[in-house]
Amino acid sequence: MDDILIVNETDLRLQVALDHDAVNVVEAAFDALAGAGVVMPPVMSMDFADANGEVDVKTAYLPGVDSFAIKVSPGFFDNPQLGLPSLNGLMVVLSAKTGLVEAVLLDNGYLTNVRTAAAGAVAARHLAPPAVQTAGVIGSGMQGRMQMIAAHLERPYSRALVWSPTHENAQACAEDIAQATGAEVLVATCPEEVVSESQLVVTTTPSRDPIVQADWLHSNLHITAMGSDQEGKTEIAPDAIAAADLYACDRVAQCEIMGELRGARAAGHLRDVTPPELGQIIRGMATGRTADAQTTICDLTGTGVQDTAIARLALTRLREQGPGTPFPR
Amino acid sequence: MDDILIVNETDLRLQVALDHDAVNVVEAAFDALAGAGVVMPPVMSMDFADANGEVDVKTAYLPGVDSFAIKVSPGFFDNPQLGLPSLNGLMVVLSAKTGLVEAVLLDNGYLTNVRTAAAGAVAARHLAPPAVQTAGVIGSGMQGRMQMIAAHLERPYSRALVWSPTHENAQACAEDIAQATGAEVLVATCPEEVVSESQLVVTTTPSRDPIVQADWLHSNLHITAMGSDQEGKTEIAPDAIAAADLYACDRVAQCEIMGELRGARAAGHLRDVTPPELGQIIRGMATGRTADAQTTICDLTGTGVQDTAIARLALTRLREQGPGTPFPR
Repeated sequence: MDDILIVNETDLRLQVALDHDAVNVVEAAFDALAGAGVVMPPVMSMDFADANGEVDVKTAYLPGVDSFAIKVSPGFFDNPQLGLPSLNGLMVVLSAKTGLVEAVLLDNGYLTNVRTAAAGAVAARHLAPPAVQTAGVIGSGMQGRMQMIAAHLERPYSRALVWSPTHENAQACAEDIAQATGAEVLVATCPEEVVSESQLVVTTTPSRDPIVQADWLHSNLHITAMGSDQEGKTEIAPDAIAAADLYACDRVAQCEIMGELRGARAAGHLRDVTPPELGQIIRGMATGRTADAQTTICDLTGTGVQDTAIARLALTRLREQGPGTPFPR
Repeated sequence: MDDILIVNETDLRLQVALDHDAVNVVEAAFDALAGAGVVMPPVMSMDFADANGEVDVKTAYLPGVDSFAIKVSPGFFDNPQLGLPSLNGLMVVLSAKTGLVEAVLLDNGYLTNVRTAAAGAVAARHLAPPAVQTAGVIGSGMQGRMQMIAAHLERPYSRALVWSPTHENAQACAEDIAQATGAEVLVATCPEEVVSESQLVVTTTPSRDPIVQADWLHSNLHITAMGSDQEGKTEIAPDAIAAADLYACDRVAQCEIMGELRGARAAGHLRDVTPPELGQIIRGMATGRTADAQTTICDLTGTGVQDTAIARLALTRLREQGPGTPFPR
């Protein structure tokens, strides 16, 4: 039996970046998710009320692929007060033929950040209007930055807007996006300004009340909502979901529990329809945007197929390039 | 931030054995499970039909305990044909205060074997008749051996019986148990002989049809059924469950899906009662055996609290004793 490869964040960052390769493997994973034979159990989730923390475990098996990842994703939101990052975790890669552990990727959440932003790029690739002059982001955390960098890979906007409740955070985020993309990036005065001036918007907040309102929507617009990934979180008003020409999501069974679909259904919308999944649109099994003038929304809660895809990309590169520590079983 | 401790099976075997310490920490975990504040999500389970494999993920948080384990437990049952063990896996230990990964225990399933056998010993401690001259095991795999070694810690029997459909397997198992316990260990001619001659029986098979029949039961008997841990598996006939003076289990919510309780309820038994859990009996919240002459059954499907308990024992010992490889984050 081969040794188990142990790799830390420093070595993983040398191998995997938020680039076209990452977007392509995540796109292929969504495509596979719409096909036959994917096994993706519901997310395992555990709350640590005393510590303002949670841990999610995600996994998926893609048919024909010889390994799969189990991702452990803790979020402890008082950590910054201790000088520690909120998000951490690792991915375990196992053989889909024998169950043997192949690698432990001690990524501290880095690969999750990459695969989450890459999914935003996949949504933009398939659903955003072809021409995006201005893109916008509501939220100014790590994903705010990474989603905008990923969006620029697919729709190379020349101007961007950032809004966050804290002006300094928005300013710092805008500077980072400008540096990474070369676009002119400004701080917006309100979230409505972000939506009304943009053709592509990403929401990346932990909000528990809808931010984007129905009367902010306009033609020639795509919104990717990726902040809501737990029951109780929401960023898009239910009547905005209903007013869009198209609502799509990463996984219906998951979004009706923890995504924007939950609030929309609770408000009486989309009750008798099964919305299309992003993978079905990629595969041509469902209709996506049909005209530039349309308004589309894509709801991303995060799926295990993305984790398996990015972990396999990391492992392929590591095996070609060398870093990582072989550890005897 | 401290380094992450990476430990392989060889080093874990030096620190954790199937002994009274292991039984005591698992007993404490069951006790905690019956109290307030335990968070134990349902088992995450994934099937690999093409490879005759499955992967289970288990976890639990015990209040007042500063770390917890997430256990990844693959079982690929064609592996022996490849010269590989069927069971493998690892445990990840995380801080319950910050979510930071503290250790990765590359145990290849060893700690699972220990905590599973230790749970059998806990069941024997609280439910077996005080005097056990003869103990028996149905099944001759690794757990057949380990359950009998664990049972001997609590009820030091002088004679034991082993039955397995394959005589050579039963013979090899009997020799191993004799060597470990010093008891006289014989191969039984049929499973009924094991039950009728023993005061303590453990069933450790992957059976999908009941083996132990109601008319084999007798006074002064305890049976621990630990083979059924998935929907469709069963070792004890439904009317045997109904005929016993006491049916207890590790977790009702789990056993009604994957344990013996499922078949019993499907056959119309125990439908309007909530059976006692082992932890409730330990804690004195529920009644266990009340007379030596009774017949009791304990149904163990395996719980995340056992994993957290044994992983913490391993980590405590490792921090005291030294082995393991610190790995930079």
